Amino acid sequence: MSTVFEMSRDELLSLYNSTLAEYAECKAQNLNLNMSRGKPSREQLDLSNDLLNMHIDPSETRVDGVEARNYGELMGLPACRRIFAELLGVRYEEVFIGGSASLAMMYDIIAKAYTHGLLHSEVKWAKLDRVKFLCPSPGYDRHFAISESFGMELITVPMTDCGPDMDVVEELIKDPDVKGMWCVPKYSNPVGAVYDEETVQRIAHMHPAAPDFLLMWDNAYCVHEFEGDFAPFIDILGACREAGNPDMVFEFASTSKITFPGAGISCFCCSEANMAYMKKLWNVQIISYDKINQLRHVKYFGNASGIIRHMKKHAAIMKPKFDIVLDALTREIGGLGIAKWSRPTGGYFVSLDAMPGCAKRIHALCKEAGVVMTDAGATFPYKRDPNDSNLRIAPSFPPCDELVQAMQVLCVCIKLAALEKLLSI
Amino acid sequence: MSTVFEMSRDELLSLYNSTLAEYAECKAQNLNLNMSRGKPSREQLDLSNDLLNMHIDPSETRVDGVEARNYGELMGLPACRRIFAELLGVRYEEVFIGGSASLAMMYDIIAKAYTHGLLHSEVKWAKLDRVKFLCPSPGYDRHFAISESFGMELITVPMTDCGPDMDVVEELIKDPDVKGMWCVPKYSNPVGAVYDEETVQRIAHMHPAAPDFLLMWDNAYCVHEFEGDFAPFIDILGACREAGNPDMVFEFASTSKITFPGAGISCFCCSEANMAYMKKLWNVQIISYDKINQLRHVKYFGNASGIIRHMKKHAAIMKPKFDIVLDALTREIGGLGIAKWSRPTGGYFVSLDAMPGCAKRIHALCKEAGVVMTDAGATFPYKRDPNDSNLRIAPSFPPCDELVQAMQVLCVCIKLAALEKLLSI
Repeated sequence: MSTVFEMSRDELLSLYNSTLAEYAECKAQNLNLNMSRGKPSREQLDLSNDLLNMHIDPSETRVDGVEARNYGELMGLPACRRIFAELLGVRYEEVFIGGSASLAMMYDIIAKAYTHGLLHSEVKWAKLDRVKFLCPSPGYDRHFAISESFGMELITVPMTDCGPDMDVVEELIKDPDVKGMWCVPKYSNPVGAVYDEETVQRIAHMHPAAPDFLLMWDNAYCVHEFEGDFAPFIDILGACREAGNPDMVFEFASTSKITFPGAGISCFCCSEANMAYMKKLWNVQIISYDKINQLRHVKYFGNASGIIRHMKKHAAIMKPKFDIVLDALTREIGGLGIAKWSRPTGGYFVSLDAMPGCAKRIHALCKEAGVVMTDAGATFPYKRDPNDSNLRIAPSFPPCDELVQAMQVLCVCIKLAALEKLLSI
Repeated sequence: MSTVFEMSRDELLSLYNSTLAEYAECKAQNLNLNMSRGKPSREQLDLSNDLLNMHIDPSETRVDGVEARNYGELMGLPACRRIFAELLGVRYEEVFIGGSASLAMMYDIIAKAYTHGLLHSEVKWAKLDRVKFLCPSPGYDRHFAISESFGMELITVPMTDCGPDMDVVEELIKDPDVKGMWCVPKYSNPVGAVYDEETVQRIAHMHPAAPDFLLMWDNAYCVHEFEGDFAPFIDILGACREAGNPDMVFEFASTSKITFPGAGISCFCCSEANMAYMKKLWNVQIISYDKINQLRHVKYFGNASGIIRHMKKHAAIMKPKFDIVLDALTREIGGLGIAKWSRPTGGYFVSLDAMPGCAKRIHALCKEAGVVMTDAGATFPYKRDPNDSNLRIAPSFPPCDELVQAMQVLCVCIKLAALEKLLSI
């Protein structure tokens, strides 16, 4: 197949007309499909149904001297903290078990920076005229939304295949108004990049001008490979400690995409000095999070290996879906030179870069044909993609047959938008 | 029995010596008892053990079109919202189901006033030089701790048997720096007062100078009678609406002292205008709270009557404990004129006012004899009881036999402290 750039205008017109016909066929199907959010499918939810029916004997509710049914133990059940320490490679003392959503824990850390200041803050952020935050992009829209909600200035940092462009980051952090950075280090949302060792070490060794620089390390997909075995990762807390930056980082994880989204357990991890500071603040906010749900998860998994074994079942459901996405893209638009896309081995997304200026149009075309995609631009700060190029494909939720249909529509729309652009139609 | 004020110095000295001997006997028992927190007992926890072993079939997880096992439905399961609406007498649209702790929901509302402002705020509170908050006292130490943590100026308002002294309140709210008030309207912590209708109506009809005055209505004990039948209460949201103050109030409740403390469900309720505003902010913070736990509670109780029936079982456990406390006080110090105490019919506490200047001493004497009480002063802003008089007795947690012992110690200590004072020893 020739790329569109090798085609004559007549060839382009001919391709445009056939694509237009394909698009009409798509619309005629009256589809109602959704590839917009990283939401587990019904089949994935079914994997954890034993959590719905678990038998816990009242005699089992007292573990490590803590009664899970009553108030107390702010940092969570010790047994649960041990599992997350093992899973993330951090120390037991560095783990705080939170509620059912790590997003809420991230929000809370940011909120506390504003209302109380962080351990090394000279002044609480609410008193500052300007707070800037680094947003490697394409990135996670909900991270950016938190920053935006607090009135931060969001600074776009380009993503590479091995993490944020550290040359850019190291320059930007010389500005004392730059107070932190969002990171999804493994199977990053949406590009699926795994930060390589050099990038992680450069991050750990940063010398930000702000003494209270806040590295938000959202390890949302730490065990979420769908291809190959569990890929070990660097303990960012240890790396920062060894680099002389022990208090710079907060790491987050949850079981939302392991057991039940929004009904699992979450945690944050930080240095012991940060933890002592945060415990004082958190102690005002809550007596303890849901220890019964922590107990259920401890009983269900036993240890970190139990979680990794469980993730193999998710992988078996996810892999065919990513194959559908990648096969369709290769088959339908592979040779045309009108888009590039990621080929992740874990996580929840395929990131697609269409021809500049085409993403919004593709999104609209898809919508008109009954396929809902994540909003074009959503993966950038302020929902503004400077190139209007990036689209996030979330294949987890639809069943395979629907996904095949949705990808068919998407590929037609990518072609159509590109041809409209090339032909100035 | 004569009161101490009718006794001669010799009689006082004789009583002092016999009390000192009693105290020595108490200490010799090497007790280790705790009456410090409003924590349900093991027996009470056992009432809800069926929640540990509940069988939920996966086919039951989709209710009102919402899949409880997946992301979504920020305000919570409709079935759960309906139960709280019925229980609190508010409208369905006014109910937002939160996480496992209403304290955290209260903290969040206050935090949002600081970081984003409330619906009618002219400026977010973080930008203000001074925020004052009214604290009817004796009151709940954790409420005051939240206010203090945010740097508010805490203003003590005297409590009466029927609620906060409204003459004082109506004067104080003329100050635009006064931004809100903490209230526990039913079986208030710790005095056990039930706000009467006149007080509730005066509260609803307030005209605070601050346009964003925040009435924090913590209905923590709304169904927690241990004596007599369920006592209906006024819907504060409706009362404020009718008084032309619809957006002034946020009401809170939880199942922490109904099912499992810290592992139940909580809610906040507010006007629809407030809700629309809060939903926008909350949507940045979380996708939804734990809907599986909401489902468990819906299945367990069915409706508000189910909760009220369940509370009868708690009452059967609580009543004998309050009888032990009140009987001991009457028997041991009733005629001496050295203390007054509340006689609640619900809630978790007995509030005791010892002779001025004696509370800290009583607390210390108890501690020395192995009985831990809530810190003296804890029921006042900044933990400073201006009279050093109030003590909070929390009888729920210890078994009855331990409670008998603990009350014996407490009564001896109350006598001893009073006699030390009177004899200037």
